[in-house]
Amino acid sequence: MEIIYIGIDLGGTKMLAAIVDAGGKLIAKAKEETLAERGAADTINRMEAMVRRLLAETFASSSAYAVWGIGIAVAGILDPRQGTVVLATNLRWENVPLGRLFRARFDCPVQVMNDANAAALGEWMAGTGAGAKDLIFVTVSTGIGGGIISGGRLVLGASNSAAELGHISIDRHGPLCACGNRGCIELYASGNSIARIVRDEIAAGETGGEAILRLAGGDPERLTAEHVAAAASQGSAYAADKLAQAGAALGIGMISMIHLMNPKLVILGGGVSRSGRLLLDPMRETVKQYGIPGLVDGVEFKQAQLGEDAGGVGAALWWRYAEQPVPVV
Amino acid sequence: MEIIYIGIDLGGTKMLAAIVDAGGKLIAKAKEETLAERGAADTINRMEAMVRRLLAETFASSSAYAVWGIGIAVAGILDPRQGTVVLATNLRWENVPLGRLFRARFDCPVQVMNDANAAALGEWMAGTGAGAKDLIFVTVSTGIGGGIISGGRLVLGASNSAAELGHISIDRHGPLCACGNRGCIELYASGNSIARIVRDEIAAGETGGEAILRLAGGDPERLTAEHVAAAASQGSAYAADKLAQAGAALGIGMISMIHLMNPKLVILGGGVSRSGRLLLDPMRETVKQYGIPGLVDGVEFKQAQLGEDAGGVGAALWWRYAEQPVPVV
Repeated sequence: MEIIYIGIDLGGTKMLAAIVDAGGKLIAKAKEETLAERGAADTINRMEAMVRRLLAETFASSSAYAVWGIGIAVAGILDPRQGTVVLATNLRWENVPLGRLFRARFDCPVQVMNDANAAALGEWMAGTGAGAKDLIFVTVSTGIGGGIISGGRLVLGASNSAAELGHISIDRHGPLCACGNRGCIELYASGNSIARIVRDEIAAGETGGEAILRLAGGDPERLTAEHVAAAASQGSAYAADKLAQAGAALGIGMISMIHLMNPKLVILGGGVSRSGRLLLDPMRETVKQYGIPGLVDGVEFKQAQLGEDAGGVGAALWWRYAEQPVPVV
Repeated sequence: MEIIYIGIDLGGTKMLAAIVDAGGKLIAKAKEETLAERGAADTINRMEAMVRRLLAETFASSSAYAVWGIGIAVAGILDPRQGTVVLATNLRWENVPLGRLFRARFDCPVQVMNDANAAALGEWMAGTGAGAKDLIFVTVSTGIGGGIISGGRLVLGASNSAAELGHISIDRHGPLCACGNRGCIELYASGNSIARIVRDEIAAGETGGEAILRLAGGDPERLTAEHVAAAASQGSAYAADKLAQAGAALGIGMISMIHLMNPKLVILGGGVSRSGRLLLDPMRETVKQYGIPGLVDGVEFKQAQLGEDAGGVGAALWWRYAEQPVPVV
């Protein structure tokens, strides 16, 4: 009988289920559309069916494994104690008792958790961060988010909302962010913002963006950060400059994170962070130039390893995390 | 036989010893000059003598108490594992094995720790923060520093240097800080900076600062943040405006801290924070105006309680902290 952990990363468009063994290794996974428009009950039924199918495919019989716990990663406002999804706008869910429903169906403990925290837990326990006690996991994709491990513990915060990494301000006189703050790093360095900045400059008649626009099929509305990265890798100095500016902004925000948390490691995940050195070198140089030497010199920067599996693997590993011995100091 | 904890807050000018009982209550304290210019050996001898005197004054005999542990709070670069003060510029100490020396003299475990962390621990365990699991302690005096409690644990960081709260940037285009960063909150809201800003404006011929200058005896070089606070409380609109600007800058930096840590409580300590509502109201309003509502609306702001005792009490309480049960989640 094998002890296993199950993790589900429930996103607005896709949902991923992962089976992780007692050693923390991913042994099977499945993915399908969330189809949130069909309503919560339908999505939950299909989540259950996906997990049962994955278990049936992976094990010879139901006596071959025992589920130690299930973790479910969701983007939104959660009540982890009750296992309730209070509000998940991308799913159009309100007050869904997800934990209770899964507990009843699988007869094992269920933890509902923030998706970015789950991904941080995954990268820490089974990815790039293995062995580190203090790290910051930053995902740079359409938005910027992440999670923090401090002293070998996941930083959750008083209402489970810690690590709003995208909403660290780097310029109090900067533009207003949708979050209400001014000059958040998300306004300069997220995929959406990189694309928006290029789009705005093209609309304002600035030259240099032609190569990017060509890659977007000539339609500014279709232009994404991937087009910027592709143009930069094909030699567009303008595109490279946009990535460098995003990287520098990210670096400034990262200094605030490092000055607060004193991490040993910063793990970068998300599509935009895969733009490579044109983004990451300026980021690292900025951190080195402006950060307190004693704090930033010791920081390693590494690429995330788990990719799209991070949230599911991390949600599964919640149960391994919750039962590990806690370092006192 | 009473179990006691001993804490020493070793500052550049003063040193304070505290005896704390097993329940966390301060039962006796003593204070004297550090006289760092006499060298480390002399200071350490007088530290020991001060503690022995305090014990003799407090207890009828040496069999009436047992020292569970000693904590020593120092500002500087420390190696807590070795108990070494690697570099303390205010003491002119380099590689002083303070922990080992005290362990030998008192025959009990000794923890050397950062002074701001010690003060945060003190306010958390025996002051305003009692009972909270997630809080930020911010001291605003000549500089800005503090400590963070997250999930019921003191945030130490990978090299014991976490919570450099004064060096959170709020303006990447702002002035260069001595730390190397630009636009740190310490440049706008610390006591030294408030005084410097007023001094610079007076030197530049701006009017409005006359009331402050009068309180400083007409000498701009003697002008401090206390003079600014005093002038403001006597009705100087100019002085009140300077405090409001400092408060707003502090608020912007605090938003970054709150967005990262999601605390339930922010504790304000230090002389400048005692300037009162003229500083704190603009700070709170700024946090409310620009912070993410779900994160900042639930935050309570409270004044620190322990005053100059915080570091000594917190250093003593280290040993109570290190042995308390650790919350898993």
